[in-house]
Amino acid sequence: MKTIGRRELLHAGAMGAAAVNLLPIIGTESVGVASAATRASVTPKAIIFDVFGTVVDWRSSIVAEATAWGKAKGIQHVDWMQFAVEWRQGQGREMARVRRGELPWTKLDDLHRQVLEGLITKFKITGLTDDDKDHWNRVWHRLKPWPDSIPGLTRLKAKYTIAPLSNGNFAMLTNMAKNAGLPWDCILSAELARHFKYDREAYLTAVELLGLEPGDVMMAAAHTNDLKAARSFGLLTGHIDRPIENDKANPGDFDVVAKDMVDFASQLGA
Amino acid sequence: MKTIGRRELLHAGAMGAAAVNLLPIIGTESVGVASAATRASVTPKAIIFDVFGTVVDWRSSIVAEATAWGKAKGIQHVDWMQFAVEWRQGQGREMARVRRGELPWTKLDDLHRQVLEGLITKFKITGLTDDDKDHWNRVWHRLKPWPDSIPGLTRLKAKYTIAPLSNGNFAMLTNMAKNAGLPWDCILSAELARHFKYDREAYLTAVELLGLEPGDVMMAAAHTNDLKAARSFGLLTGHIDRPIENDKANPGDFDVVAKDMVDFASQLGA
Repeated sequence: MKTIGRRELLHAGAMGAAAVNLLPIIGTESVGVASAATRASVTPKAIIFDVFGTVVDWRSSIVAEATAWGKAKGIQHVDWMQFAVEWRQGQGREMARVRRGELPWTKLDDLHRQVLEGLITKFKITGLTDDDKDHWNRVWHRLKPWPDSIPGLTRLKAKYTIAPLSNGNFAMLTNMAKNAGLPWDCILSAELARHFKYDREAYLTAVELLGLEPGDVMMAAAHTNDLKAARSFGLLTGHIDRPIENDKANPGDFDVVAKDMVDFASQLGA
Repeated sequence: MKTIGRRELLHAGAMGAAAVNLLPIIGTESVGVASAATRASVTPKAIIFDVFGTVVDWRSSIVAEATAWGKAKGIQHVDWMQFAVEWRQGQGREMARVRRGELPWTKLDDLHRQVLEGLITKFKITGLTDDDKDHWNRVWHRLKPWPDSIPGLTRLKAKYTIAPLSNGNFAMLTNMAKNAGLPWDCILSAELARHFKYDREAYLTAVELLGLEPGDVMMAAAHTNDLKAARSFGLLTGHIDRPIENDKANPGDFDVVAKDMVDFASQLGA
């Protein structure tokens, strides 16, 4: 893998900002075209996507399954949305420990399981077998996409190589794609670098495996920190707004700023 | 990754042999069912496939493109089948050097390019630019499947997780799938282990990334050495006959012995 020095990184970051240049394209009045589209001036060869929150709706997926678990197990005292949010927060906290070197590399399934044990205690849930816990833990393999994700990704796949680049482990992302019908060309995961985003290795291992240069690859995410990290390593960036993720971008902040996955596909000419 | 000792290896090999047990299933006389099917008694969770020769027909794909190159470049003196066969032989020779540690890890695109330079000299081909050579080298990204590969894989995908496990690098396999419409659930490659088959790491890294145990994963190939290696590391095995690869198996040699990909799918109940 090519090493990138600090000055090149800074330069790449500046270039990323300079490349923000959306060309307005005149909308047609034809029936069925809802609004004038803007067309991105950048031309990636591949687009890699954050998954949790960007492609799939982890909150409602977990709450829906947990509500069913609760009924089956007679657990009625738990606020499952709070449970889901704390699981996600625990995920972030444990990944940060791995990034800082306080924990060795640990795949996300195993971090989730550790966090789950703590939540089971905190929320006073009793009577679960190890098999129950394993099944619950794998709810992250069964997350459901936002309604616009598959239509947008299917259009993008016709023009670009598309893949996840998530902190989810390889099997989680493979199973999720199979369950949900996500049309990825391949699965990329932080696990392949054994470094979570926002570490440099997570992004550049994905670029290297695709056989491309960083400037040929666009990172797409609902989270601005993910995009800022990707840009600092030379990747193109696309923001997809997911209001509940509460991480808005303004036009011009990234190479593409889209209101959803279908708008993102339109701006990329797909 | 779990380490497997020599005695366990031998034991796993013996178990693999013992698991060979094909149950005949009585054929129906209905119109459209050509012959009585046999049903394998093993139940993998995932099936990983050798690619060159097993899924795609490298000979005819290279000869077809090379014939067109030859015409475009005015090269008429080259026997392109011989050229293709020597390229494949060179691939094997260079991979063996990497396996023996005489070369550092080198991805297959780069080994192909080195072999290509030698063949261009040997076959007295002149006038190629670097861009020409890069394009020729990537013919391996554009190999075409055998006619039964996509029908068989599509049936298998409905029941199993399916992926390549090839010595081809990740980008080569991703591009090949996109070009040819191979319906993989994910891309697995020797590159992810930085070890070519038949090294242990190539197989067990794939198993680990799938989040499975070796005994849950079937290696499928037209080449008996690939299957014997996989079995020695605890994987299930399926032989798919490709007569031109000239590497026949007898019934009972592996967990499944099939005459083509569609027969392989039938035997696995897909």
